[in-house]
Amino acid sequence: MTPADDRSREDAADNTLTARRLGIDTRREAVIFMRRDCHVCRSEGLAAHARVRVANGKRAIIATLYHVTTELLPPGEAGLSEAAWESLGVAGGGAITVSHARPLASMSTVRARIYGNRLSEDEMHLVIGDIVAGRYSDIDLSAFITACAALPLNEAETVALTRAMVDAGDRLQWPTAPVVDKHCVGGLPGNRTTPIVVAIVTACGLTMPKTSSRAITSPAGTADTMETLAPVALDIAQMRRVVEREGGCIVWGGAVRLSPADDILIGVERALDIDSEGQLVASVLSKKIAAGSTHLVLDMPVGPTAKVRSAESAEILAKTLSSVGKAFGIETRVLQTDGTQPVGHSIGPALEARDVLSVLRGEAGAPEDLRDRAVHLAGALLELAGHAPDGTGATEAAETLADGHAWAKFQAICEAQGGMRTPPQASHRMPVLAPANGTVTTIDNRKIARVAKFAGAPDAKAAGIRLHFRLGDRVEEGQPLYTIHAESPGELAYALGYAAANADIVSVTEP
Amino acid sequence: MTPADDRSREDAADNTLTARRLGIDTRREAVIFMRRDCHVCRSEGLAAHARVRVANGKRAIIATLYHVTTELLPPGEAGLSEAAWESLGVAGGGAITVSHARPLASMSTVRARIYGNRLSEDEMHLVIGDIVAGRYSDIDLSAFITACAALPLNEAETVALTRAMVDAGDRLQWPTAPVVDKHCVGGLPGNRTTPIVVAIVTACGLTMPKTSSRAITSPAGTADTMETLAPVALDIAQMRRVVEREGGCIVWGGAVRLSPADDILIGVERALDIDSEGQLVASVLSKKIAAGSTHLVLDMPVGPTAKVRSAESAEILAKTLSSVGKAFGIETRVLQTDGTQPVGHSIGPALEARDVLSVLRGEAGAPEDLRDRAVHLAGALLELAGHAPDGTGATEAAETLADGHAWAKFQAICEAQGGMRTPPQASHRMPVLAPANGTVTTIDNRKIARVAKFAGAPDAKAAGIRLHFRLGDRVEEGQPLYTIHAESPGELAYALGYAAANADIVSVTEP
Repeated sequence: MTPADDRSREDAADNTLTARRLGIDTRREAVIFMRRDCHVCRSEGLAAHARVRVANGKRAIIATLYHVTTELLPPGEAGLSEAAWESLGVAGGGAITVSHARPLASMSTVRARIYGNRLSEDEMHLVIGDIVAGRYSDIDLSAFITACAALPLNEAETVALTRAMVDAGDRLQWPTAPVVDKHCVGGLPGNRTTPIVVAIVTACGLTMPKTSSRAITSPAGTADTMETLAPVALDIAQMRRVVEREGGCIVWGGAVRLSPADDILIGVERALDIDSEGQLVASVLSKKIAAGSTHLVLDMPVGPTAKVRSAESAEILAKTLSSVGKAFGIETRVLQTDGTQPVGHSIGPALEARDVLSVLRGEAGAPEDLRDRAVHLAGALLELAGHAPDGTGATEAAETLADGHAWAKFQAICEAQGGMRTPPQASHRMPVLAPANGTVTTIDNRKIARVAKFAGAPDAKAAGIRLHFRLGDRVEEGQPLYTIHAESPGELAYALGYAAANADIVSVTEP
Repeated sequence: MTPADDRSREDAADNTLTARRLGIDTRREAVIFMRRDCHVCRSEGLAAHARVRVANGKRAIIATLYHVTTELLPPGEAGLSEAAWESLGVAGGGAITVSHARPLASMSTVRARIYGNRLSEDEMHLVIGDIVAGRYSDIDLSAFITACAALPLNEAETVALTRAMVDAGDRLQWPTAPVVDKHCVGGLPGNRTTPIVVAIVTACGLTMPKTSSRAITSPAGTADTMETLAPVALDIAQMRRVVEREGGCIVWGGAVRLSPADDILIGVERALDIDSEGQLVASVLSKKIAAGSTHLVLDMPVGPTAKVRSAESAEILAKTLSSVGKAFGIETRVLQTDGTQPVGHSIGPALEARDVLSVLRGEAGAPEDLRDRAVHLAGALLELAGHAPDGTGATEAAETLADGHAWAKFQAICEAQGGMRTPPQASHRMPVLAPANGTVTTIDNRKIARVAKFAGAPDAKAAGIRLHFRLGDRVEEGQPLYTIHAESPGELAYALGYAAANADIVSVTEP
């Protein structure tokens, strides 16, 4: 915390205000709200939108300052955003001091990078350390990411970035090897293979301690889906016990601090819509290295609207992933998969969980594409980890699924995580009907996802969409195209209203 | 406003909230505060820190969303920052609608620029148009600026950026030519030559309609100083009448919208501490072109701690300025000046105004360095505009100052702007004394400026610092080094306390 911490004491003594928690969630950005007429703003000349140093005793952060010009704040008080409040660890009514933020030393490094200098391991550590400590503004973050896209990271920098990202967070270690993992580069809607893959490969005896994320903007993340089947908010000790007992787990990564820089960098990359190969590689591998993985299979959907657009760029990316992975002792295999349409037929946590269960149980109506992808990925992991000879992994995976071993293992993992649950059923459902006879030609994935969100997903676990067709299917007028599931009549009506107003969500072309 | 305006109506109908003005000044950033549990956040899946479209009827902006998790906002209401409130023109209790912001088309252009594509005039117009409309987040702005630093703007792009910045704001036109202007590239403390230069060249018959800025982080801007001598908050019509009558003015630029992109871009460049030549050139020239200038003299202080560090880089910059200026029909001359120490002996609006008056009146104690710089700049303008033969401008300028014509013209301009004023005197003053016999060897400009701000400058117009020495002067123990001026005993004590705690503000080296 050096750059922000070395201000002379006489500055701080006069700059004291009482902290107030305003209950304003700015996500990761630390914001402080101060009366424009307060003595600190006046004496320090702190302008609105300035970056300031806020200290609570020895704990100090850098925050963005907003001026308050009304009686929203009483004199002598400063309001803190949730991120600032938590980072500072202020008790109610606690005193904080505010002063100008000093320039960050690591930003000189970023400036040098903008002008074309390559970053060393040490420099990358300084940059990532400041980013994880919340010292970078959006402007700073964007400059770093843009500089690394304008002049792409070379392999040495990619390795340095990966190592810095690993070192900035927690690191898990496992007594047995190999430790396998899977990752999907650029998710497809409904591509919920993870619980099935974990069940198959752990049933075959491999170790797979899987952490997953919750949905940020989508109607369901793997952790949301899995939570309808078992508890997922496990801490590291609990997670370790599950893995020791069953060989694997499927838990939420939020309680574990693996590569915490990743979420921050991804947020800015997403905002800019920049795909930088070096950062993608560091993002994927840093999480896996921190999780203690030794063997990694990557699901890389390729398609015109997918993250990876062509087989050629998939191969280049795969080569870098394997090469950088090797620098950290991770064996990587990349599987190019179909990225032209969504996987499975459900959207929403509990509904996707039912798809997963039907595949694990080998039910007749189970979505074939979901099962096939899971088998393909699990087979690759079995081969990569040396468990199955090349060319036999998928067969062993399919058998492990078919003979019920994967299903038994999945139940055991759920029990170990705190007890298996039955995914909730939505009490309010309504079908949307085909407007005419014809063939289903298109589905607008963005809009169908919005229907699911209007219906309450992911907060309402049972809410979502069940599709009754696949592209190319023939339907008849009045036949249900999809069913909206909701937990309240209001949300159902809300989703139906949106669906009714957007007839192009599913297109039926008359013959 | 196209990119944000073309959402289908059915989206908006359900997304209505009542606007509340929170009195939170975020500077230019539009921020909306919404209850996390409100129906819009839930149905749209609007995450904290998302960029959202906020509409008041046909007026729409893009804003950053913060979630409120307390009763700071009643249900059904959304809070707006000052920038958002003003841009939307909401009446109290007015209804606004909120939805996801669509990606900006011009950001594809920025992405292409990051990957090395040069920008056309049209593309630059789209980018700058979106920036001026407030549609760029800090992340977007930083990416644009970083991309233009990583691969520097070429001359065609610099011309395109300059033109786009001019076209994004107001443009003044004057019936007579030449119209002269001056600008200082990278200000020095106390370098308050502008009022003197305007007085001299207009007394010689040139037209010089000068707009200046207020202080943002310094203890005084030219507009702050000039305001202690005459009204400066003139609108365009008033400004025009002053210039028609007296040939020149010295007004605050805030009421005139000349190159409004400039302040936004400069704010980000300052935050990143990036000096990009193309953007500096576009910044300077766009304001001058928009102001209708035809001849421009640039004061370019060169010194180890100045913006321009060496004579060589000054020459390269001067060449680009002249060349791009020529593309817009502006004759430019760059003067390299001493940038090693501050100019004059005062800090603070009214105190600097007294320095200006003493130079204009030809008083015995007037700061020579301030007078010499003003004469140098005014002389160059007289030559550049064809009024004086080369080599004679400075002499004519000095004579115009010495014979009282400049002083008479300055008084006439002040009268035309609304009446000349006497700068206020501070009622509370206290000297800071030399700690020993010796020579003044250093002065910490940043800290002496902070003393002036602690004393109340620039809001308290009479507040500031009067220095009683120059570098290299001999002083005796107990002799006043500088006097703090304040408008209240509290501010005086506050500034004195800071001065007492920082003995290194002025260093006296004993013999």
